[in-house]
Amino acid sequence: MSDPLRLGIAGLGTVGQGIVRIVQTHAALLEARAGRPVIITAVSARSRTKNREVDVSDYAWEDDPVALAARGDVDVLVEVIGGDNGPAKDATEAAIRAGKDVVTANKAMLAHHGQALAELAEDAGCVIRFEAAVAGGIPVIKALTESLAGNEIRRVIGVMNGTCNYILTRMESAGLPYEEVFEEANKLGYLEADPNLDVGGIDAGHKLALLSAIAFGTQVDFDAVELEGIGSITIEDIRHAADMGFKIKLLGVAQMTGRGLEQRMTPCLVPGTSPLGQLQGGTNMVVLEGDSIEQIVLRGPGAGMGPTASAVMGDVMDIARGLRLPTFGQPAATLKKARAARAAVAAPYYLRMQLLDKPGALAKVASVLGDAGISIDRMRQYDHGEDIAPVLIVTHKTTRSALDEAIAALPATRVVQSEPVAIRIEAV
Amino acid sequence: MSDPLRLGIAGLGTVGQGIVRIVQTHAALLEARAGRPVIITAVSARSRTKNREVDVSDYAWEDDPVALAARGDVDVLVEVIGGDNGPAKDATEAAIRAGKDVVTANKAMLAHHGQALAELAEDAGCVIRFEAAVAGGIPVIKALTESLAGNEIRRVIGVMNGTCNYILTRMESAGLPYEEVFEEANKLGYLEADPNLDVGGIDAGHKLALLSAIAFGTQVDFDAVELEGIGSITIEDIRHAADMGFKIKLLGVAQMTGRGLEQRMTPCLVPGTSPLGQLQGGTNMVVLEGDSIEQIVLRGPGAGMGPTASAVMGDVMDIARGLRLPTFGQPAATLKKARAARAAVAAPYYLRMQLLDKPGALAKVASVLGDAGISIDRMRQYDHGEDIAPVLIVTHKTTRSALDEAIAALPATRVVQSEPVAIRIEAV
Repeated sequence: MSDPLRLGIAGLGTVGQGIVRIVQTHAALLEARAGRPVIITAVSARSRTKNREVDVSDYAWEDDPVALAARGDVDVLVEVIGGDNGPAKDATEAAIRAGKDVVTANKAMLAHHGQALAELAEDAGCVIRFEAAVAGGIPVIKALTESLAGNEIRRVIGVMNGTCNYILTRMESAGLPYEEVFEEANKLGYLEADPNLDVGGIDAGHKLALLSAIAFGTQVDFDAVELEGIGSITIEDIRHAADMGFKIKLLGVAQMTGRGLEQRMTPCLVPGTSPLGQLQGGTNMVVLEGDSIEQIVLRGPGAGMGPTASAVMGDVMDIARGLRLPTFGQPAATLKKARAARAAVAAPYYLRMQLLDKPGALAKVASVLGDAGISIDRMRQYDHGEDIAPVLIVTHKTTRSALDEAIAALPATRVVQSEPVAIRIEAV
Repeated sequence: MSDPLRLGIAGLGTVGQGIVRIVQTHAALLEARAGRPVIITAVSARSRTKNREVDVSDYAWEDDPVALAARGDVDVLVEVIGGDNGPAKDATEAAIRAGKDVVTANKAMLAHHGQALAELAEDAGCVIRFEAAVAGGIPVIKALTESLAGNEIRRVIGVMNGTCNYILTRMESAGLPYEEVFEEANKLGYLEADPNLDVGGIDAGHKLALLSAIAFGTQVDFDAVELEGIGSITIEDIRHAADMGFKIKLLGVAQMTGRGLEQRMTPCLVPGTSPLGQLQGGTNMVVLEGDSIEQIVLRGPGAGMGPTASAVMGDVMDIARGLRLPTFGQPAATLKKARAARAAVAAPYYLRMQLLDKPGALAKVASVLGDAGISIDRMRQYDHGEDIAPVLIVTHKTTRSALDEAIAALPATRVVQSEPVAIRIEAV
């Protein structure tokens, strides 16, 4: 294996440049570890003349990533263009059709077309690797696919969007409302061009769907992910949650239940003293639970030039070393279509509502909850204005449907002002 | 690759039984993921008649692990006997000589004979895998060898002995002295037969030496690990450290310096709010730092039947899937002998001493430190008895040699009672 592994880099944004930099600065290190040189032969990007932090003038240039993918001097297409369709997908398919392996950081493409691409690749004897697509530099794809291969996976939990975690922790530390921190994050360049990809939970939902497929041997099913963004989280909820020992996180949870595969990417409360609760800023964290391993926690940078390029290069080095696996850890043809289960697992909930401050109001609410089979663990009433009192309730474990039933019945009490806020409390 | 992978399990203690259980209960899962069945054909242990939690009567029995290793119906020797020499090493060598791969949980054997065994294995075209040898269920070997293969590794830090972390965190939470918690741990069965392997830092030192080899492309050199156990840590030090925002950990640190490879397994102070500082009980944590990845933190169970068996099975599954790498990530012949650098990197230190409570005493100490080029960051004097005052000093960054020089000069001040305690503060 002394032939060099020849990379074609499609996309020269931050991540693409990070990859070029690693290949250029660590040639000897990569060769020592791979047992063969790892080189770049060709690159492709939208603008050839743009100023870049790395010099790509030694590499062949292709305006079209599809042409790059098909070049005879490219063994591996490194796809860091992004986008679920368009040039990224076209180039990936072209590479596979030409018998080349693909390393990609593209969560959207795989969340939407992962099954089809995996089948295409396996038919062609090619591999698709995507460590950088999930949680940036954290080696969660490898840990789940390879290290935990002896485990029946119980649950995958994670904070997988650094921007959302930045916003939520910054709201708490600076005491600022969502809108203000959102603007701050926007100015800092933390948000995607379409911010809803971040704060709507879509980007993180893509990642969760990929982890689910590996964890449970199922076909990627992004449409089955229950999505709820962080836009409705208020500074009051963050403060009240903290007051009761919790933090609010945009939390991904995937687990196989008796009723099917549950995939959620929604705001949740977690204990403030847990590793997830302690996670500050833009850092990502994924918790993997299996029947033998019990629980491992992986924490690291979820984005950025270096960490993402590091993850891409980990995949490249695997290919250079001849480590080849099916895309989702087992042959695509053996991945099952999972039945989607929505909120199948019961949990305690945090409930916040505004009550009219008059005798019997709390009793009426408790009675509605009781009628829905929901018992109360803790309740707090806060300082309030003339005739409205904010009330917090932590329930014992209940199903989301029982909770929805109770919430639907609350207006009839005529003591609840405005729609109650309900946030699941996840045991971590 | 539909031929089954046939395992011979040498050792049927806790870990061995955990492996048998996984193979028995997850046959379908393993086959789906590996693309071939993974089966056990033969086992070996000291006593055939011992009561075990798993039924091994279907497998061929060998009294001698060397005979097991050489059997024609064994493809992979799973060595979970333990011990740096004796049957474990004999069986490992026999397996390699017979052209078989080896999966082992044996940190002592590899810390002492890793280079020779790696050379033997590579000459024979066999692989040795040892994920379970370091930090139990945490996939740190794989993360370092494979996921971070594109990084120049900057530093490896970790809490890799759960028993020591249990003792230190229990001392703090229960306010108990070392001796008492040591006895408690002993009764709970947390300690090795030779407790010094745990509390002396030897077991953790073995693990650090293995990580160093992978991280820096060097030959395993356990003898170069600076070892210091936790036996001299007092409850006072733990309390004083906490008071200044630190926790005391038995911390492994490996880094390549301008003067050579520094490997330490010694008590250190770390910030209480850092992931390492927050680590409670028997859990392990390894922090990997590289030039691109920045920092990832891996946390999980460092021992136990399930987690250790999970790590062994991760290695077995890699072999079943045809993923083959040199033992330490690059060919054994290319691993360099590193020059050992002792405490090459400057750091702040925590210093505790008993001072005579008389005018000018503190000034004399400060003067001695100043003469050695050590400046003081913080100093605290505590409530005290008649004429002795406990004094804590946190220095700015200094070298260990400057500190030793200062400590040697302190008795001449005639104000310092008893030997000062000096503990390095590691930036994490």
